[in-house]
Amino acid sequence: MSELLQKAKKAKECARVLSSKTTEEKNTALLKIADFLLNETDFLIRENEKDLEVARNNGTNEGIIDRLTLTAERLSDMAEGLKQVADLPDPVGESLTEYQRPNGLGIEKIRVPLGVIGMIYEARPNVTIDASSLCLKSGNAVLLRGSSSAIHSNIALVKVVQDALKQTAIPSEAIQLLEDTRRETATEMFTLNDYLDVLIPRGGASLIQSVVKNASVPVLETGVGNCHLFIDETANPEMAISISVNAKTQRPSVCNAAETIVIHQKWADQHFEQLVKALSEKNVSFVGDQKAQTYNQTIVQATEEDWANEFLDLKVAIKIVDSLEEAIEHIYKYGTKHSEAIISEDANNVTTFLNEIDAAAVYHNASTRFTDGFEFGFGAEIGISTQKLHARGPMGLEALTSTKYLVRGNGQVK
Amino acid sequence: MSELLQKAKKAKECARVLSSKTTEEKNTALLKIADFLLNETDFLIRENEKDLEVARNNGTNEGIIDRLTLTAERLSDMAEGLKQVADLPDPVGESLTEYQRPNGLGIEKIRVPLGVIGMIYEARPNVTIDASSLCLKSGNAVLLRGSSSAIHSNIALVKVVQDALKQTAIPSEAIQLLEDTRRETATEMFTLNDYLDVLIPRGGASLIQSVVKNASVPVLETGVGNCHLFIDETANPEMAISISVNAKTQRPSVCNAAETIVIHQKWADQHFEQLVKALSEKNVSFVGDQKAQTYNQTIVQATEEDWANEFLDLKVAIKIVDSLEEAIEHIYKYGTKHSEAIISEDANNVTTFLNEIDAAAVYHNASTRFTDGFEFGFGAEIGISTQKLHARGPMGLEALTSTKYLVRGNGQVK
Repeated sequence: MSELLQKAKKAKECARVLSSKTTEEKNTALLKIADFLLNETDFLIRENEKDLEVARNNGTNEGIIDRLTLTAERLSDMAEGLKQVADLPDPVGESLTEYQRPNGLGIEKIRVPLGVIGMIYEARPNVTIDASSLCLKSGNAVLLRGSSSAIHSNIALVKVVQDALKQTAIPSEAIQLLEDTRRETATEMFTLNDYLDVLIPRGGASLIQSVVKNASVPVLETGVGNCHLFIDETANPEMAISISVNAKTQRPSVCNAAETIVIHQKWADQHFEQLVKALSEKNVSFVGDQKAQTYNQTIVQATEEDWANEFLDLKVAIKIVDSLEEAIEHIYKYGTKHSEAIISEDANNVTTFLNEIDAAAVYHNASTRFTDGFEFGFGAEIGISTQKLHARGPMGLEALTSTKYLVRGNGQVK
Repeated sequence: MSELLQKAKKAKECARVLSSKTTEEKNTALLKIADFLLNETDFLIRENEKDLEVARNNGTNEGIIDRLTLTAERLSDMAEGLKQVADLPDPVGESLTEYQRPNGLGIEKIRVPLGVIGMIYEARPNVTIDASSLCLKSGNAVLLRGSSSAIHSNIALVKVVQDALKQTAIPSEAIQLLEDTRRETATEMFTLNDYLDVLIPRGGASLIQSVVKNASVPVLETGVGNCHLFIDETANPEMAISISVNAKTQRPSVCNAAETIVIHQKWADQHFEQLVKALSEKNVSFVGDQKAQTYNQTIVQATEEDWANEFLDLKVAIKIVDSLEEAIEHIYKYGTKHSEAIISEDANNVTTFLNEIDAAAVYHNASTRFTDGFEFGFGAEIGISTQKLHARGPMGLEALTSTKYLVRGNGQVK
């Protein structure tokens, strides 16, 4: 039997055991993993060094090497994260509705774990621990499939996790890593409907699209955010500029960063240069439509690609419009339904924007950078869903649960 | 452009318009459709006759011909169903949570329509109207793909629906039928991610599996119910027999009918013959394990197939066990996580069963036949979900919605 099939079967067995573990048993296990991570810091850094050496020899770029690197501080942050997940309320068993039917049947809907979660992700060893802790707390077994470039780090992390679990009531194989990182093995996971209840891909757009297109196991799609700010005619100029700078520059590589700023012409007439100056000071470069170029001739004409894609960089597209409706049309055409914001003091326009824009999160007078499980108060995040089924927007522990109906009768027949 | 692509594009446009229609506008449209169905009874029956003639010429079996047949009474029931959906609360816009973060951001989660729903179903013209009414009420456009054997009926029904909508505020093409019923066209729907937000297949297991396996559009899986009754040692005999007869015989062809009765040996010692007699009077035939055969030698040995599959017929499998645990193991091995019931007067056993059985609905002292949107009080049903993501068990209007976060600030940046 292949490693995949063997581990998937084991995961299914563990999921069954895990689903009835108490909150206390799960929390004890989370804290035990935190202790072990701290105690095994030297071992983990040593194993991580093997991945780093391969990466350096391959000429991997600095950004990716940085993401791949484990340090004592980062391991300590992971341990802290585990403690925070232990402190979160347990979603499993929560009663969501309870009512009685006229025939006397009592119907209660409660939260239950999903079962087995398949996690497919790229070269970030921290995802190994984040995903493990959230799956464990929500009563799910997890089968992790990380990147080959992080394989030594991941094997070491999961060894430490399993060693910790062996001292607890939680079966150690509730958290497993697929050591076989061939692409065709990941592809086999896509159709393992008998063992996996959901797949969560985390990484670049091509990884995610490959899972969405080819998986028969249900997928929680996370991904692309081509986010817009709309600066309305009545926008407070200081606020609009502060939000623009934050949404574009605070961390340009993430999905909730702004990519296009749509500006009402009347606001632009007054404040365009001030906005360009503030962004330029943060080293932002510009593309824009013809109207934007009339305000500032250094702005390069934006291509169709520019409007449609994430820059994930210190680059912004500027579109000038005559009306709220034109702004909404532009966002409808190019947005990816992730996060969109209006900066405005006009209550009617705000209401129209919040109603008509179809996105996971629609903002008024705030930065799109807040679309995040921590900022939303979930205490944790397994990803940001960009699909409409099951969960939309930041996903915390609740997104890792399903429900079941308990129906209590005294002999009712139909 | 193909009919499919043309109609899918139109559906997406209509979904956008429909999402902001008021409850009153949607209800007016539902009632208008009901009126039109009643006024066009003769036309609809005439068109339906064309399908019936083809079916008779093809030697189609009586059960299917019966499902295909439209009568004045059935059309009147459909009109009644539309009125009932109009009476249901509108899920769209419902505020699910609302709270403030320490930084002053106000976060509200509201229900929104899914967008465009692709409905793929077999030869039941009533699904055309049921699905249309639920999609319309929940603010979704729908692209219907029915069976070629019901094509005249479906074309006529959708014509009547669209004629009705033309007299209302709802765009008439919010409800469209794909007249091209070739299999390859349905297959094209599976991957129309740019236009369809969800696919709902309704019909036999092979249709549903084909959609689940091949679709990249998210699927709401409905389907197979290999449902069990467990009669515990302490079960009240009259209640156990009454529930067994009801769950097995009241409508054997449906997914929430019982297929296997698992019986504690001590209960069987007292009441086995009484149970067999009651079921036999309803023309039920039996298969069973060796122990069951020691009680009644006319019982045929059950095969692996018998335990694993739905009979969807007046046939039942009987399994005798020594303990609750053995019953739970049998259900874990063969159940399809649809509906499972325990008949027992032992509170501890009931709690264990309700906790450990993983199914959409778990019953105590009631028939599995209640797993149904109407019986659960939803007022309507688009199907019974057998998956764990998004919706599990009977799906009413809420299952046809997604959510969005509205985030209100006064200049917050991260």
